[in-house]
Amino acid sequence: MPKSPQIRIDTTSTTPAYKQLADQLRVLAVEGVLKPGESLPPLRRLALELGVHFNTVAEAYRVLAQEGFLLITHGHGARITDRNPPRRPEPESLENFRQRLRELVASVRAHGLSTKQITSELNTAAEGLEKC
Amino acid sequence: MPKSPQIRIDTTSTTPAYKQLADQLRVLAVEGVLKPGESLPPLRRLALELGVHFNTVAEAYRVLAQEGFLLITHGHGARITDRNPPRRPEPESLENFRQRLRELVASVRAHGLSTKQITSELNTAAEGLEKC
Repeated sequence: MPKSPQIRIDTTSTTPAYKQLADQLRVLAVEGVLKPGESLPPLRRLALELGVHFNTVAEAYRVLAQEGFLLITHGHGARITDRNPPRRPEPESLENFRQRLRELVASVRAHGLSTKQITSELNTAAEGLEKC
Repeated sequence: MPKSPQIRIDTTSTTPAYKQLADQLRVLAVEGVLKPGESLPPLRRLALELGVHFNTVAEAYRVLAQEGFLLITHGHGARITDRNPPRRPEPESLENFRQRLRELVASVRAHGLSTKQITSELNTAAEGLEKC
């Protein structure tokens, strides 16, 4: 992994740091920025780079290992797996996505983003996915 | 407010209950399901209906009051305000939205939703906004 590419921990956020880290690493894995087989930095080094506690990185790695994104082995550290998503998503996944998307949109509208800006981002995201 | 319409608290979620409640009420306010002037249920009644602690509802109301969605007055309880979003969103809002959207999409892809399903939801959300 390149030197902690786009990872940023916002210490003022209400989202726990381990979750912020896991969320961002998941993006990099799903989008293929981190490739299967690639090693993640050792816990202590990443913790130092990000300015977070060792346990924070350990917890983020644990979450991603549980989800099947990382394989953690003694001696080899944490590596990105060749993970395939579950064949059949749970039936509530779509409903859950719809609700989380509504919440996200409501939250940024509340922060003053215009519907035009939001629509444009949604369309860009959709176009990006269509290329996958 | 109709009897706690679409509100659901997921006690297995890692998102705190007060935040789940605030997020869902914010959606209802932003989407206009809850209209300006409308009263929210008294804390204790809503807590009872949702099966959460009194303080959970109090904290959610406090968050929304701080954001300007609710006006809490003694004797009149909590009412939806005629809130206008800030004229100028903070410059980081757009970047923040982009990142949160990426994280949300990565998370549901990891749960097995197809890019087609996700694209379709994104487009539906965008179309819904264009009608606003």
